[in-house]
Amino acid sequence: MPLKQIISNLRPKRPARPAGEVRFVGAGPGDADLLTVKALRALQEADVVIHDGLVPAQIVQLAQSAHKFIPVGKKGFGHHTPQSDINARIVENALRGHRVVRLKGGDPTVFARLDEEIEALEEHGIRYEIVPGITAASASLAAIGQSLTKRGRNASARILTGHDMKGFADHDWRALAQSGEVAAIYMGKRAARFIQGRLLMHGADPTTPVTLVENASRADQSILATNLLNLPDVVDQANPSGPALMLWGLAPRDAAAHPVLQQELA
Amino acid sequence: MPLKQIISNLRPKRPARPAGEVRFVGAGPGDADLLTVKALRALQEADVVIHDGLVPAQIVQLAQSAHKFIPVGKKGFGHHTPQSDINARIVENALRGHRVVRLKGGDPTVFARLDEEIEALEEHGIRYEIVPGITAASASLAAIGQSLTKRGRNASARILTGHDMKGFADHDWRALAQSGEVAAIYMGKRAARFIQGRLLMHGADPTTPVTLVENASRADQSILATNLLNLPDVVDQANPSGPALMLWGLAPRDAAAHPVLQQELA
Repeated sequence: MPLKQIISNLRPKRPARPAGEVRFVGAGPGDADLLTVKALRALQEADVVIHDGLVPAQIVQLAQSAHKFIPVGKKGFGHHTPQSDINARIVENALRGHRVVRLKGGDPTVFARLDEEIEALEEHGIRYEIVPGITAASASLAAIGQSLTKRGRNASARILTGHDMKGFADHDWRALAQSGEVAAIYMGKRAARFIQGRLLMHGADPTTPVTLVENASRADQSILATNLLNLPDVVDQANPSGPALMLWGLAPRDAAAHPVLQQELA
Repeated sequence: MPLKQIISNLRPKRPARPAGEVRFVGAGPGDADLLTVKALRALQEADVVIHDGLVPAQIVQLAQSAHKFIPVGKKGFGHHTPQSDINARIVENALRGHRVVRLKGGDPTVFARLDEEIEALEEHGIRYEIVPGITAASASLAAIGQSLTKRGRNASARILTGHDMKGFADHDWRALAQSGEVAAIYMGKRAARFIQGRLLMHGADPTTPVTLVENASRADQSILATNLLNLPDVVDQANPSGPALMLWGLAPRDAAAHPVLQQELA
C-alpha cells in the first residue's frame, strides 16, 4: 500500500529538537490520503498523541514511534471529556518533555476549541505549532462537485455550527434565507428541524436545496440530497450516525450519481 | 529531503485506468508539505498539468511523469488567460486520452472558478474528480494562532472575496460591521480602502483588528497586523506583492512574535 511506503520513508526532519512542545495537527475528514505531508511527518515524530475520538484508528496509528495514545473529546453524543481535562493532559505531557501531537478531526482552526488549548499552553510557556488540515466543508464540496462560491450565485459563504444555534442572531437567519446564499453547517444534523424553522420563518424558499454529507471522504461516505421543506424528515428517516456536514443552498452537481438518495427522496 | 523520498516511493495506484480524465487538485497555500498525499499521488500520475500561475514551481515539478505543463490563469494582476481558453485546454487534453491534473492554488472549491471548468467537461462527457486542498484561510489562521470561530466571540464566520465587492449586499456589510464578526477575505488587498469605507459607514469600530497574511505557509510569509482605521495606509506602505488573505476581526495571538510588523505599525 503506497501510504505505508510513504510512512516508512519519512525520517524525522528534526531529530534533536528541544523537548516539550505541542503540535495541533489537522487529521482531515477521515481518508488518510487527505492528510498533508506535514501532518504525516508530525505524527511520525510524536511521542504522545492526544486524539479526538472521531479520528479514525487508521490515522492515529500512523504515529508509529509514539508510546502513549490518549483518546479524548466527544464521540458523537457519547462519551465526553471535559475541556479542562483535555487541556491538563496536553500540558502535563508537554511539561514532561514529550513531543505531543494534539490530533483533531478536520482543521484545528475550525470548530475545534483550539483557543482554550493554546491558552493553557501559554500559561505554562509551552511552544506550539498549528498544522492545518482539510476541513469537512472542503471534502463535502469535493464529494458533491460544487464550489463554496460561484459567480452570479454567491460571492460569499458562511461557516457555522449547529451547536450554538441559539446565539445566532436574527439578522443572520434573514441573510441566510435569501436566495443564492450558501452555508456550510457543522454539526447541524441534530439541529435540522430548528434550522428549517428559522429559515422558513425568515422567508426562505422551501425548495432551496440542502445536502447532508455524512462521513465525507471515508469509505462509508453517504450523501443525502433534499430541500428545506423535507430536510428534517429526510434526516430523521436516514438517521445518519457518523459526522455530517450540512450544505445549505447546494445540491450535488450530478444528482444521477446518487440513485439511492434519489430513491429516498421519491 | 524527505519529500523527495516520499515521491520516489509513490507508485501509481491505478496503472491501467481508462484514459481521458481530469483531476482538479488543490495545491494548497504554497508550502509543498501542505499538499495532501492524494494530491501528491495525482501529480505523480498526471500526463498533463494545467496549473495556475500562482502555484510554486516546486509543486508543479512534482508531476515527474507529465510530458506537458500548461501555465494558465492570473498571476496577481498581470498576465491573464481567459476562462474559455482554460476550459478549452482542459477539454482538448482530456479528449486526447491524457490524465490531466488541473492544479489550482489552495482548495479547488474556494474562489477557483471550478464550476465553469466542470461544466465544460460535462458538455463532453469527460470524467472528473476533485481533490481538496488546504485553503489560504486555514494556513493564515494557523500562522497567527487563531481560530475562525471561538466560543463567546463568534459562532459563525464568513468567507468572501475582494473581487466582486460591488455585488456584496448592504446588509452583509452591516452584519460584518458588528462586534465579534470574523471574515476571511480572499483577494482583499486591492480592495482595502473600499472595505474600510463600507465597514466604517456601517458602524464598525475603527479599532477592530485586521490581519493581512501574505504568502501564507511559504518561506517568505509575512504578517501585517493592523486595525480598520489604519488598514489602507498600512497596506499601501507595505505594498505586499504576493497573494494575501485578509482576516477581519482577528489579530495575531502572539503580537510579540511579529516584531517587524509591530515596528511598521509604530
